[in-house]
Amino acid sequence: MPKLEAYSHQLDYSYAPGIFPSHALLNARPELARRLLVRSDAAESEGVRALMEKCAALNVRTETADRALERISRKENCYAALVFDKFSCELSQTGNHIVLVNPSDMGNLGTILRACLGFSLPDLAIIRPAADVFDPRVVRASMGALFSMRVGLFDSFEAYRAAYPEHALYPFMLDGSLPLPQACRAAKAPWSLVFGNEATGLPPRFAQLGQPVRIPQSDEIDSLNLAIAVSVAAYAFTQAGE
Amino acid sequence: MPKLEAYSHQLDYSYAPGIFPSHALLNARPELARRLLVRSDAAESEGVRALMEKCAALNVRTETADRALERISRKENCYAALVFDKFSCELSQTGNHIVLVNPSDMGNLGTILRACLGFSLPDLAIIRPAADVFDPRVVRASMGALFSMRVGLFDSFEAYRAAYPEHALYPFMLDGSLPLPQACRAAKAPWSLVFGNEATGLPPRFAQLGQPVRIPQSDEIDSLNLAIAVSVAAYAFTQAGE
Repeated sequence: MPKLEAYSHQLDYSYAPGIFPSHALLNARPELARRLLVRSDAAESEGVRALMEKCAALNVRTETADRALERISRKENCYAALVFDKFSCELSQTGNHIVLVNPSDMGNLGTILRACLGFSLPDLAIIRPAADVFDPRVVRASMGALFSMRVGLFDSFEAYRAAYPEHALYPFMLDGSLPLPQACRAAKAPWSLVFGNEATGLPPRFAQLGQPVRIPQSDEIDSLNLAIAVSVAAYAFTQAGE
Repeated sequence: MPKLEAYSHQLDYSYAPGIFPSHALLNARPELARRLLVRSDAAESEGVRALMEKCAALNVRTETADRALERISRKENCYAALVFDKFSCELSQTGNHIVLVNPSDMGNLGTILRACLGFSLPDLAIIRPAADVFDPRVVRASMGALFSMRVGLFDSFEAYRAAYPEHALYPFMLDGSLPLPQACRAAKAPWSLVFGNEATGLPPRFAQLGQPVRIPQSDEIDSLNLAIAVSVAAYAFTQAGE
């Protein structure tokens, strides 16, 4: 493996910064681990020692890399990071999906990954252009949930639709004709909940592609934060009937 | 008014950074506005010109303050900011409340303010120690929702409880005995949904103070992000029966 570079979306590897995300990677997808980076004072940390033991058992090399860790973590306190191969996944043909069309905020993306996993929705489609789901900041914000998810990247919504033509589509729009409480009770599985960009939402044409849904909200706010909207919808659709 | 200082929680004023939060302040609580700061190139911006007109009508002085704006916005692009008086509110005795015990993350706090307003829950109690709800970063993350909320600050949960003794308490805990879908259907208004700190949650004693609730989630994550948990609970309690 060549010298480690500062993260860029062109690389075929990325970094899981921090002890918790690194453990999440080793538990969920150990075959992706390339190398463990630790700070020179990290042997004091029980979590780092456990990482080193797991890596040794997997034949993944550990090396001291203070400056690389500082760069990866952008000066946040970071004792360890795993270098991992990026991956791509087929989504489930029979399971429910979350679809993000052109999400742009990395913090939102990480929070959404964690919430989707929490609501047992491990299939996430991302329509490009989009924030880079493998960016170390997303990995960190997801608390490592990224590694337990199936994430599919698509160049257009049409490419996603061609791959999964049977899912019932529920585009979330501020003027959606059906309120969320009613929509989730009438939902036909497998379904796809579709969300637009943080600033612009979904283009109007999405209203024709499925049953548009609105999350009831007061007119005192413009819209909910994207991660909030996705999570409320995920909760409602997965808990309907409980 | 003395020379403007860098924001600190000891000041009796704060800054609403950005055009959107500044408009939100002037619409919701114009009496709090002290002074409008604009960048020297800001007259090109229609949003800033509208702010200046509103301020003139309110007898609020506008001044050019490039360096102060850079400091307030931490180098993010910021054309204008309103200096405003901090405020404190009585919460509604008959309306429902959200109660945050020792929240520590400013981004979460802003997102929660925006979501609470979106779900028509304008009464928020914060138990100290807590992130400073008047910090310009919270104001910005709230998109100005702060100014349409009633926010009460308390030194202990007991002080909050003494002021609002009639609310039915629903502490949210990972091991809460009642799942959220059932809890919200049986809820007795007025209610208070109570949430703990991001890292530690609520202390166990809160289970004795009311009906503990858990948000159903897979064991693949430790917990949901605080803003996600509050928003899902707010949605469920306000939409129950719809």
